[in-house]
Amino acid sequence: MTFAAPMSSKEARQMIRNNEWVKPTAGVANGYTQANLVVLPKELAFEFLLFCQRNPKPCPVLDVTEPGSWEPSMVAPGADLRVDLPKYRVYRNGELTEERTDIIDLWDKDMVGFLLGCSFTFEHALVNNGIPVRHIQENCNVPIYKTNIPCVKAGRFEGPMVVSMRPIPHKDVVRAVQVTSRFPSVHGAPIHIGDPKLIGIHDIYLNYCR
Amino acid sequence: MTFAAPMSSKEARQMIRNNEWVKPTAGVANGYTQANLVVLPKELAFEFLLFCQRNPKPCPVLDVTEPGSWEPSMVAPGADLRVDLPKYRVYRNGELTEERTDIIDLWDKDMVGFLLGCSFTFEHALVNNGIPVRHIQENCNVPIYKTNIPCVKAGRFEGPMVVSMRPIPHKDVVRAVQVTSRFPSVHGAPIHIGDPKLIGIHDIYLNYCR
Repeated sequence: MTFAAPMSSKEARQMIRNNEWVKPTAGVANGYTQANLVVLPKELAFEFLLFCQRNPKPCPVLDVTEPGSWEPSMVAPGADLRVDLPKYRVYRNGELTEERTDIIDLWDKDMVGFLLGCSFTFEHALVNNGIPVRHIQENCNVPIYKTNIPCVKAGRFEGPMVVSMRPIPHKDVVRAVQVTSRFPSVHGAPIHIGDPKLIGIHDIYLNYCR
Repeated sequence: MTFAAPMSSKEARQMIRNNEWVKPTAGVANGYTQANLVVLPKELAFEFLLFCQRNPKPCPVLDVTEPGSWEPSMVAPGADLRVDLPKYRVYRNGELTEERTDIIDLWDKDMVGFLLGCSFTFEHALVNNGIPVRHIQENCNVPIYKTNIPCVKAGRFEGPMVVSMRPIPHKDVVRAVQVTSRFPSVHGAPIHIGDPKLIGIHDIYLNYCR
């Protein structure tokens, strides 16, 4: 396995803040919880939090910042959500308009940050259980697919469930379910095992890292 | 044990809607999930949902209605939150001002209903496991106490954790933990076992039903 050098979550954030790690964080800060970040103006915050509450499997909420604050004080005191992520995608009116390494100038007094559990968290546990994780072995990002499973709508938020995929040897599938089931706040057990067509995924690239 | 006659959740709601059951619902509609209700104007909804997210043990969210709707369409399609509860307490500016059996005239287009899991739900499972439930035996409400454990603040919402108390024979305590742990969305396992003073409760009335 190709894990990054062991480091704490604080060390990982500092490295990222210094722009020394500008790529996905699979294999970084093993043993610590990883999160996805959604930032929205307060006006949309209730509808999005409700969307998460109605869709806890894809959107498990770990922490929500006070409006205007960039510090997730419950899960990562001292962190700065404006600079501690490798990259940010900026959507305006639903369109991806920009990709950048910080969002300092975009974070105004109305911004609310939502930290959603990330499945990178349980990969170290999979490896510790003898289950290989392909995208870590191949040093690339986890493959992500859009399914045909609708999320439960809340206010202006709706859409199909998006999933990550990990190819697991047949003999390890049961153990993979057991291991990931212990991590419900970072997506937990798989939503599907077997033929991806059954959940609307028709093109799987098993050599996705190249 | 003195349980009410077996009935479905729908039958129970109809009975309550007809003002034929104007008291707490312990022992009613066994096997169905029971909920507590909080109704707030939309302007407070995000802060309260965040309070629940930060305090999932006392405030496990089962469903949240669309602003203006009185139907909890995910957990109880067809229910009417304005009339399907035995009694409502109306707070104005933080003060209890009224108690009534419906809130039809108070429910305006901004109202959001939050259904929070209620521990009455697991009492039938306790009884099925041979663990007596005193307030059902004595046909009264579960005793409720204010602890000295602070909830995590969110916006304008803060305060000490409030708990229900069930006297359990020593020999049944472990099993009671196991049984209630299976019901995390209706508070789940106890937050405390033993001397109530340790969580700031100094006056326990074991003959609370009289």
